[in-house]
Amino acid sequence: MDKTAYENQLRKLAELSVRFGVNLQPGQEVLLTAPTGALDLVRLVAVEAYKAGANAVIPFFSDDMMTRARFEYGHDACFDHAPAWLYDAMGAALRSGKTARLAIYGDTPGLLADQDPQKVARATKSLAQAYGPFREAISSNSTNWNIIPYVTDGWAARVFPDDDTETARGKLWQQIFRATRVDQPDPVAAWQQNFAELYRRRDALQALALSALHFSGGGTDLTVGLATGHKWVGGGLALANGTVYAPNLPTEEVFTMPDRTRAEGRAVFTKPVSVSGTIVEGLVVEFRQGKASRITADTGEDIIREHFATDEGASHLGEVALVANSSPIAQSGVLFFNTLFDENAACHIAFGNSYDMNLPDGADKEKAGANSSQIHTDCMIGSGETDVDGIGQDGSRTPVMRAGEFVI
Amino acid sequence: MDKTAYENQLRKLAELSVRFGVNLQPGQEVLLTAPTGALDLVRLVAVEAYKAGANAVIPFFSDDMMTRARFEYGHDACFDHAPAWLYDAMGAALRSGKTARLAIYGDTPGLLADQDPQKVARATKSLAQAYGPFREAISSNSTNWNIIPYVTDGWAARVFPDDDTETARGKLWQQIFRATRVDQPDPVAAWQQNFAELYRRRDALQALALSALHFSGGGTDLTVGLATGHKWVGGGLALANGTVYAPNLPTEEVFTMPDRTRAEGRAVFTKPVSVSGTIVEGLVVEFRQGKASRITADTGEDIIREHFATDEGASHLGEVALVANSSPIAQSGVLFFNTLFDENAACHIAFGNSYDMNLPDGADKEKAGANSSQIHTDCMIGSGETDVDGIGQDGSRTPVMRAGEFVI
Repeated sequence: MDKTAYENQLRKLAELSVRFGVNLQPGQEVLLTAPTGALDLVRLVAVEAYKAGANAVIPFFSDDMMTRARFEYGHDACFDHAPAWLYDAMGAALRSGKTARLAIYGDTPGLLADQDPQKVARATKSLAQAYGPFREAISSNSTNWNIIPYVTDGWAARVFPDDDTETARGKLWQQIFRATRVDQPDPVAAWQQNFAELYRRRDALQALALSALHFSGGGTDLTVGLATGHKWVGGGLALANGTVYAPNLPTEEVFTMPDRTRAEGRAVFTKPVSVSGTIVEGLVVEFRQGKASRITADTGEDIIREHFATDEGASHLGEVALVANSSPIAQSGVLFFNTLFDENAACHIAFGNSYDMNLPDGADKEKAGANSSQIHTDCMIGSGETDVDGIGQDGSRTPVMRAGEFVI
Repeated sequence: MDKTAYENQLRKLAELSVRFGVNLQPGQEVLLTAPTGALDLVRLVAVEAYKAGANAVIPFFSDDMMTRARFEYGHDACFDHAPAWLYDAMGAALRSGKTARLAIYGDTPGLLADQDPQKVARATKSLAQAYGPFREAISSNSTNWNIIPYVTDGWAARVFPDDDTETARGKLWQQIFRATRVDQPDPVAAWQQNFAELYRRRDALQALALSALHFSGGGTDLTVGLATGHKWVGGGLALANGTVYAPNLPTEEVFTMPDRTRAEGRAVFTKPVSVSGTIVEGLVVEFRQGKASRITADTGEDIIREHFATDEGASHLGEVALVANSSPIAQSGVLFFNTLFDENAACHIAFGNSYDMNLPDGADKEKAGANSSQIHTDCMIGSGETDVDGIGQDGSRTPVMRAGEFVI
C-alpha cells in the first residue's frame, strides 16, 4: 500500500469513527485514548472531531516503553497503585454525557510476557479497581463511544512474525481497512447494511425468548443459561437521548447476558486469549453452576487462573455472543491476537462483568442473573465446527447455528 | 553533537529533573506534561521516576497539530470551552501533595500567530479559567514540581531561523544543556553552587526590608512598590513537610511580590513577549497607581492589550524579579522566545497573579498588596544598561544593581 492510499484510508477511518462510530454531537468533548505510536490517526481524529463540532479533544496516550519502565525499574509498592483520581474524574465526565469516548486500540500482544507474573497480576488488579468508575460509565450506556484499531509495530510483528516490520504493518493495515470497510467507497453505507443483518439476528433471537444456549463442536459441550429478561444487542446502541452510536468497529456479533449461576460443561477455546500482556494458548475451562471450576492452558495457565481469581465474578460469565464463521474477519484466516478482531471472528463468552444494556431498564440485576466483576475478558469458543441450539423455557431445542453459520 | 552525546545529556537532564528539580519522594505520583515531540525525554523521565520510587508516571501530551486543528476546524462555541473537570481533578491531586508535577516545556513560539486573534483570546481565557485549580495548587506551594525545556522543531526554527532544522535543533540543545548544567560532570553540584549565590542575594534583599524598587536605563523609568511583608525567593523552595525542590531549571532569578497598587512610570521591555501563541515585540507600558494605563507595541499590540484585559488583575503586577546580566543565559546572547529562558536572562516583571510564597504564611494577602488574576505573564525589562535602586521605608536609596550586575 503506498503512502497516499494509506493516508486516505486512515482519514476515512477517523471520519467513520467520529461520524458513525461515536456519532459525536456538537458541543461534546472527546476523551481520546491511544498508543503514542498512533499520533497520525490521533491528529486525523482531532480534525474530524472539530469539524463535527467537538468542544475539546482531550488525548490520553499510553506508551509501551513507559509501561515496561514501570516493571523494570518500579519500586515494589507501585504495583499496588493506580491513579484513581484520574479515572474518577474521567468516569464522572463520561457519565455526564457531555464527554464522548473514542479509543484507538493497538496494544502490543505479550508486551509483559517476560515480566514477573505476580507484579503483572497486582498491577492489573490495582488498575481494574481504580478504573471502576470509567468502566461503569461505559457499561451503563451513559455516553456515546467507539473503539477502532491501530497497527503498532509490536502488534504487526505478532500477527505476521515472518515478515519485516514494514511488510507486516502493511499487511495488517490491509486487513484492518477491509474489516472496518474503509476500503469501500461508502463505509457508512456498508456498515448500515451489515447492521441491518445484525438487527435481524438480534430480533429473531429475542423472539425465541430462550432459557439457554447450547454450544457443541470441536470438543466444546457447553450450556450457557441466559439471564431472566435478557436483551439481545448487536450493531448500534441508542442513548436515552436517542443518539445512536456504534461502539465497536469492526463489529460482527450479537450478544446477550448469561445467568451467572447457570453455565455447565466444557469450553475448548478456539483462539489465544490476551490477558495482562500475556498470550494464553490452549485454554480449556469446565463450568459447574456457572463457575469456572477447572482451568487448564498450554501456555499462561498461571496468568489466566490469577485473572479469573481477580474477584468472585471473574470466574463467572458476563456475556455470550454469536458470530457467523462467514464474517469477513473469520474468513481472513488471520489470527489477530486482539480482542476487537478475534471476538468478531468467532462465537465467544466473556468472563466477568455483564453489561446493563443486556437487561431492560430498571430490572433487578442480581435476581436476573447479572454478574459483577472488575474484569470483562472475551474468550473465543466458535469455529466452523460450532453448532448452537437455543433451549426454550419448556426445554425445546431450536437450531440457531450449524457449522458456524446462522440458521435462524 | 552526535547521537550518543545527545542521548547521554538528555538522560542527565531527566535525572536532574526527577532527583534535584522535582526531588521526587518515594510513593509520589508524577503528573507529567509534555509536547508529543518530546517522547524520548518523557520515556527517560519515566525510567528515572520509577527508579526514584514513583507510584505512577501519568503523561499528558499536547500537540501543535491538534492545537491548530481546533482553530482551523472548530465550531465557534468551542473557543469558550475548556475541560474544567480535568483541571479540577489534577488540581486536587497536586494539592494532596501525593502527586508531584514535572513539566517538559517546548512550546512553538508564534504557533497561532496566523489565527483569528479573537478566537485565540477567547480560548486563552477559557483555559485560564478552567486551569484555576491547577494554577492554585502550584502557586500555593502544596506540592513539589519542576519545569525543564525540550527543543521542538518549531522552537529551534524560531531561535535559529537561518539554519536547517537539524542544525538549529543541535544549536538550541547545546544552549539548553549548558544552561541546565547537564554538560557539566556533576550538574547537581553546579546547581547547588548557583543556588548558594541566589540565596545570598535573596537574604541581602530581605535584610533591606525595602518599600520599592526603582528601575532605570534603556528608556525605562519605573518604580515598583513592594507588598507589605514581601518575601524574596530564589533557587529552591521548601514544602511544609521539608522537601526542598527546584521549580525551574534553569533558574537565575530572585523575585518577590509587588504591591498591586504601587507601580509608577514607564517600562520599555527588552525582549519579545510570547502570548497566546503570538510574539509581541517592542512593548512599552506606562503604569499609574499600579495599573498598566498605556500599552503600545510594534507587533501584537491587540493581542497583548486583550491579554492584559483578561481580568482586573491582568493589568497589575504579580511578580518582580532580579537577574544578573552575567547569567549564563544572558551571556549566550541568544534570544530564546521562551519564558523559561528569557526570564532568566534579564530582570522582569510579571503581569497577573502573584505567588503566595512571596508572603509569610497566614498574611492578609489583599491588605499586603497581592494581585489576583487568571494570567501570570513574565515580561523582561532588564539589560546591561539596567540600574536598580532599593527604596527604603524612609525613602533612602540603596544601589542594588548597576549596569545589569548586582552590587549588594
